[in-house]
Amino acid sequence: MSSTPATIGHKRAFNFNAGPAALPLPVLERIREELLDYRGTGMSVMEMSHRSPEFEAINAAAEQNLCKLLAIPDDYAVIFLQGGGSMQFTMAPMNLCLPGKPVDLLHTGTWTAKALGELKKGILHTVAASTETEKFIRVPRAGEIKFSADVSYTHICTNNTIEGTQWHTLPVSAAPLVADMSSDIASRPIDVSKFGLIFAGAQKNLGPSGATIVIVRKDLAERADKNLPTLLQYRTHIKERSLYHTPPTFAIYILGLVTEWLAEQGGVTGIQKRNEAKAKLLYDTMDNSGGYYRGPVEKSSRSLMNVVFRVANGDEAIEKKFAAQAATAGLVGTPGHRSVGGMRISLYNAVGLDAVEALTAFMREFQRTRG
Amino acid sequence: MSSTPATIGHKRAFNFNAGPAALPLPVLERIREELLDYRGTGMSVMEMSHRSPEFEAINAAAEQNLCKLLAIPDDYAVIFLQGGGSMQFTMAPMNLCLPGKPVDLLHTGTWTAKALGELKKGILHTVAASTETEKFIRVPRAGEIKFSADVSYTHICTNNTIEGTQWHTLPVSAAPLVADMSSDIASRPIDVSKFGLIFAGAQKNLGPSGATIVIVRKDLAERADKNLPTLLQYRTHIKERSLYHTPPTFAIYILGLVTEWLAEQGGVTGIQKRNEAKAKLLYDTMDNSGGYYRGPVEKSSRSLMNVVFRVANGDEAIEKKFAAQAATAGLVGTPGHRSVGGMRISLYNAVGLDAVEALTAFMREFQRTRG
Repeated sequence: MSSTPATIGHKRAFNFNAGPAALPLPVLERIREELLDYRGTGMSVMEMSHRSPEFEAINAAAEQNLCKLLAIPDDYAVIFLQGGGSMQFTMAPMNLCLPGKPVDLLHTGTWTAKALGELKKGILHTVAASTETEKFIRVPRAGEIKFSADVSYTHICTNNTIEGTQWHTLPVSAAPLVADMSSDIASRPIDVSKFGLIFAGAQKNLGPSGATIVIVRKDLAERADKNLPTLLQYRTHIKERSLYHTPPTFAIYILGLVTEWLAEQGGVTGIQKRNEAKAKLLYDTMDNSGGYYRGPVEKSSRSLMNVVFRVANGDEAIEKKFAAQAATAGLVGTPGHRSVGGMRISLYNAVGLDAVEALTAFMREFQRTRG
Repeated sequence: MSSTPATIGHKRAFNFNAGPAALPLPVLERIREELLDYRGTGMSVMEMSHRSPEFEAINAAAEQNLCKLLAIPDDYAVIFLQGGGSMQFTMAPMNLCLPGKPVDLLHTGTWTAKALGELKKGILHTVAASTETEKFIRVPRAGEIKFSADVSYTHICTNNTIEGTQWHTLPVSAAPLVADMSSDIASRPIDVSKFGLIFAGAQKNLGPSGATIVIVRKDLAERADKNLPTLLQYRTHIKERSLYHTPPTFAIYILGLVTEWLAEQGGVTGIQKRNEAKAKLLYDTMDNSGGYYRGPVEKSSRSLMNVVFRVANGDEAIEKKFAAQAATAGLVGTPGHRSVGGMRISLYNAVGLDAVEALTAFMREFQRTRG
């Protein structure tokens, strides 16, 4: 606490981080305004008991806002957990697997590989489709998926953050669909009734890291053995409305503010339009660059959330220069994931069209002067 | 985001919440100052990638500050996890149990009961001591503990938040001591080398909820079966220095600020003196009230962190009035845990002596006018 901050100017960057990622400015301003005194309580939200009426109201509002935003049917529960998507790779099979019935997995990249890694620790499973031989440059086509006959559930990752692919048409599975929606939840309308379970870390489209959203059909949560660790049973959190133990209160508060902000943007329909416009501008810039910016992803699988491309045929020195000059121009988070290289631009809900306009202008200028 | 806050006056309450609890005002002010632009990055800490140099520095500083503050030896690792103390009731036995060797548990209240509940799900264990028949009004005496011959570890809760008791002399166990230090970590000096593992939610003495501190002797972390879920193995987080997956970045940032603040208070030796002075003032007020305020806890086991007492022989109507009038006077969080009733005053590190002075003045006045 001894040193003073280097800068107090509040110059905001255009933030294309892949997560944790940009938050809406009005949300940050509200957090700042209420930081020392939440609406006359004399305390920060961080300092309030999770059993206080004030926090219970915050928790309930976040839950209800999300139900409204995603049109979640009554037979589903919304709970806020900890541990991110990675913990769900363990919790989902632990809770939803039925004896002798495998998990079908649709393998589309790094995050389904992680889910598969946990399944390999003794859980019956089948890879029902994979685009690994094509380096995951697209999601599987409907005809390529070989669903097993009698499975516990089908695991899907709706948007692949690292590979830059997204399912635009959901596969039709007889088994409940368990969806890792970490990087596209609340970015477009979905039909929740088509899913058995949806999970997502908040830190891309809905808030800061530290809170995990789980939307689960209540009857499926009852499959779990009651002898499982209490904290790893969905039913524990459903019964206690996410308050079985101390929740990440501040993250849930911010999640609630982001859902309010999303409602003001016209909900998921409104935000989808904006997300489509942002992605179109960026993909058009790539497609009109004469191959200088080239994305590996098949057009039908292009993600609206994470746009990946190489610069100058993947010349790493030029890509490094691109990232450095972009950062100098206030465009943050352009390098691709360390495992794949290149560039990756994340266009989550809180990224404005102005940010993409600034980026695409920079891209044209970079190509013109150094290409 | 549509409504404006009811109050903007920043009148701070005296906050005796049991956790989440009071944070140091300079820490909150720093958070507010940096909220829209962390030291010239143009982003909030919440918006930064956990793989960015900025966040890696925040994470490393929090870890190093804690090592210095608690004089943690080199053969221990400090990791930041999610799930709170409750998750550790599962992770500790999962990682540290050796075949055929039970866990010895020292049963001192609600939180060891929770730990016991998880052990009962198929883990070999013994209750080596319990004060349950005395309603947990003290911790066991050295002579009462019957350690088993060859155990995996001994579980202890150093401070019992709900019962208001604390171990002032640690039991000497041949087996590694696994300590739930959720409500007294960093409130007094400890000899870390006497423990195999220490865990604590940050939300009482070290920060907001959502981050869990685990201090573990590295060799013990190697006991775990590598086939356990990746996220539930301590070694995963030790190897990746808490960055295996997206951590609760903002909570870790605040934890770092609180450790800086603690260093400025003279470290744990300095804060212990302040904590002792606070507790003494409150216990003296009780003891000098002629029995109007009466604590159930044996003097030798009295907690410096959570002071529990009844008002007017446990008259619930008067206790309700006490809490309501205290709240009106800006003294927040005085009611006891819903499971035991009465009053509970939590005196964690961030609670100032001025708060206890205000409270004890209120107590004397309440007794004089309504007793």
